[in-house]
Amino acid sequence: MAEKKMVEAITSMDADFAQWYTDVVKKAELVGYTSVKGCMVIKPAGYAIWELIQKQLDERFKEAGVENVYLPMFIPESLLQKEKDHVEGFAPEVAWVTHGGMAKLQERLCVRPTSETLFCDFYKNDIHSYRDLPRVYNQWCSVVRWEKETRPFLRSREFLWQEGHTAHATAKEAEERTIQMLNIYAGFCEEVLAIPVIKGQKTDKEKFAGAVSTYTIEALMHDGKALQSGTSHNFGDGFAEAFGIQFADKDNTLKHVHQTSWGVSTRLLGALIMVHGDNEGLVLPPRVAPIQVCIVPIQQKKDGVLDKAYELRDRLKGSFRVKVDDSEKTPGWKFAEAEMRGYPIRIEIGPKDIEAGKCVICRRDTREKTEVSLDELEVRTGEALDAMQRQMLERARIHRDQHTYSAAGMEEFERIFHEKSGFVKAMWCGSRECEDAIKEKLSVTSRCMPFDQERIADACVCCGRPARKMVYWGRAY
Amino acid sequence: MAEKKMVEAITSMDADFAQWYTDVVKKAELVGYTSVKGCMVIKPAGYAIWELIQKQLDERFKEAGVENVYLPMFIPESLLQKEKDHVEGFAPEVAWVTHGGMAKLQERLCVRPTSETLFCDFYKNDIHSYRDLPRVYNQWCSVVRWEKETRPFLRSREFLWQEGHTAHATAKEAEERTIQMLNIYAGFCEEVLAIPVIKGQKTDKEKFAGAVSTYTIEALMHDGKALQSGTSHNFGDGFAEAFGIQFADKDNTLKHVHQTSWGVSTRLLGALIMVHGDNEGLVLPPRVAPIQVCIVPIQQKKDGVLDKAYELRDRLKGSFRVKVDDSEKTPGWKFAEAEMRGYPIRIEIGPKDIEAGKCVICRRDTREKTEVSLDELEVRTGEALDAMQRQMLERARIHRDQHTYSAAGMEEFERIFHEKSGFVKAMWCGSRECEDAIKEKLSVTSRCMPFDQERIADACVCCGRPARKMVYWGRAY
Repeated sequence: MAEKKMVEAITSMDADFAQWYTDVVKKAELVGYTSVKGCMVIKPAGYAIWELIQKQLDERFKEAGVENVYLPMFIPESLLQKEKDHVEGFAPEVAWVTHGGMAKLQERLCVRPTSETLFCDFYKNDIHSYRDLPRVYNQWCSVVRWEKETRPFLRSREFLWQEGHTAHATAKEAEERTIQMLNIYAGFCEEVLAIPVIKGQKTDKEKFAGAVSTYTIEALMHDGKALQSGTSHNFGDGFAEAFGIQFADKDNTLKHVHQTSWGVSTRLLGALIMVHGDNEGLVLPPRVAPIQVCIVPIQQKKDGVLDKAYELRDRLKGSFRVKVDDSEKTPGWKFAEAEMRGYPIRIEIGPKDIEAGKCVICRRDTREKTEVSLDELEVRTGEALDAMQRQMLERARIHRDQHTYSAAGMEEFERIFHEKSGFVKAMWCGSRECEDAIKEKLSVTSRCMPFDQERIADACVCCGRPARKMVYWGRAY
Repeated sequence: MAEKKMVEAITSMDADFAQWYTDVVKKAELVGYTSVKGCMVIKPAGYAIWELIQKQLDERFKEAGVENVYLPMFIPESLLQKEKDHVEGFAPEVAWVTHGGMAKLQERLCVRPTSETLFCDFYKNDIHSYRDLPRVYNQWCSVVRWEKETRPFLRSREFLWQEGHTAHATAKEAEERTIQMLNIYAGFCEEVLAIPVIKGQKTDKEKFAGAVSTYTIEALMHDGKALQSGTSHNFGDGFAEAFGIQFADKDNTLKHVHQTSWGVSTRLLGALIMVHGDNEGLVLPPRVAPIQVCIVPIQQKKDGVLDKAYELRDRLKGSFRVKVDDSEKTPGWKFAEAEMRGYPIRIEIGPKDIEAGKCVICRRDTREKTEVSLDELEVRTGEALDAMQRQMLERARIHRDQHTYSAAGMEEFERIFHEKSGFVKAMWCGSRECEDAIKEKLSVTSRCMPFDQERIADACVCCGRPARKMVYWGRAY
């Protein structure tokens, strides 16, 4: 335990969750410092997680017929302004390029905050006939939004994401694609990130600038706050009308296309940290852990110990992402560091273990230690990783459900938000007035109208008029 | 042949190489139009090639101990100005962000044209001790250079690339890493892109802004022009001194780190097109072909033909990237389209083939057709792809060697460049005056001082003084 203190302690999450978060992203070496204000350096340990997210999500995209492309990072001001709601939503928070080389530009360009307008400009020239449809394109890139308050992964002036942009012949097909991509996000979050999500529709107040409808997946963090983790938008033919994207249909008439867009970002790394992390640091679900198994040799200077550690690594490396910590540090320090970095499995192997033909497997999530015969190493490691992946999702679901409340009336609604932190389900009449009033009073926002609707009461929690929808409310990141 | 005309013809490469290039990038659907001046849309067929380049190059990087990171896209003006040569080289061609949201920025930011200054700013805070070295980081991103004349892939205001940035304890280690990465690029170009390259060092005139030495791989295009295809720079400790990047060495003294950087970009797609393409369109080496095998059913409306085509696809898809062209077009049209897009192998299967238990395999590079028994399909397809990959490199090497000349004296040197197009090897005294004089007179530039030096003559081709180096000269993209 003495060595434990050698790894600088992180703030306890119960004492100060925000500081705990900052400590973890720094001490797990996910981000580094840059003097570029509001931006972050994503260090190898953080970027490797993003690469695993990209790889696995991109595979799911490709199975769903998505093709990757790359569009320019600049948007001429006149292009940004073509769709009225969209420009109002984004113009206040973009970065403007006014000079190129030594000369002032004739028209200023913004750095893309999102690329609907660029895809429209492209589709306008690229789509002519129903034979050109659907277009199901995606790009992996970075975008810029001039935020005032920033936090690594959760809100920064530049972040990495993917943005899908599709064009369809019919409204029905566009709506189906919007939902399909939301379902892909939800499946990915649960199966890969071990994060359970609520799927639902945003209210008009909260929907994307220019969208007819916005769908969202909402996750609950350990501190009871909500994190919007991915969105999928149906634009109808609004952008197509503004940009003049028409196609000759089978019946030989010109029609406007129907469009969608959908995205997830490096925010997901913030979600991973805040859903799974604990007071020892990061806890990574095996499927997105860049190192799944860390082998720590005990008394590594004794004959044969390091060789054995390398032998175990070589046995495991065909099936798992594995490393040996053969640095000069003490085992205790290495244990603490492996925990800080969230490696799912730690294997301890020392002279006595070698003699007995066994090793110790320690799971990061439960910190449970098991003696394992070296003959069964591959099987038992695989089983431990599978169990951890499954149980992390179960545990997150239980936490989410335990912090999800229902309120029939306003008094109860207020009391819950004053005393607790989490999702509150309540009925809503559908009016903007009630939504604004609740936000004003309690500093909470409507997260979504979930697809799985329940009838908690007959009346709107705020005004008492007949309720139309059940809504999830929460404090959000 | 009638159907052939249905696919719009491309300009012959002998008639107008530049127009042929433009036609191919458009008709093979590698790039699309955008109204953002000087930028390009990389369409699915083009982006999929870049993804294959990224994947295979990134694997080679990781084997060489490279770790991926992501740094901000903005560089504060004061940061760009810290290294004198560097700012002089890049300031004239950067895009400047002057406003964020509604407010004017206190300090303007340029969009990164390259990230040496950002990595220095980061390393300054991240490196303290010899234990922190080496740092071998890389990022995949886009960069911006405000070019006046642009051409898709070859020169555009925004392009995709990777940039590696390393820091080392000793000058020797930095130099070794610089050469190691150049060798990785050269191996990748030859083994994956089937493009032979000359490895060498740039002259002081042509080296990177701020570098002590720049190494390059130079490839020869079909029209005899040279394309700089990748560079690797050794910075010595110049940036470290300008930015104050010091570490405590084993002997407990503070020392400056030694740095390198190295990059390749979407220019490589331009090289692929111009080295391998022909008058029918693109020719892709199998290892970077997003579709390696295109199955074209003949008389596809006849019973069983399409089913057989799908059956062949299912047999091949475990080992190859394969598709069936089951569109309503005629076989002739499909053949022409498959050639335009550069698919390495076309498989033709019709009712008579099915009856005879065979199919026809047609190679894109030689357009040679072979009858193949369906029993041997997998093996023969694999053999054809392997042979094509190998022979494309051989053919490119022969073309390059046939267009590489030697000149002992100035008269011969001039005559070759007046009559021919290609590389010319000539001796050089090492003076900037001679290099400038040759460039001025013949509009050719020194491509590199190759690692494989030859003694063509004793005197400099320009001034007659004693020669110090053999140099490759050429007209460059």
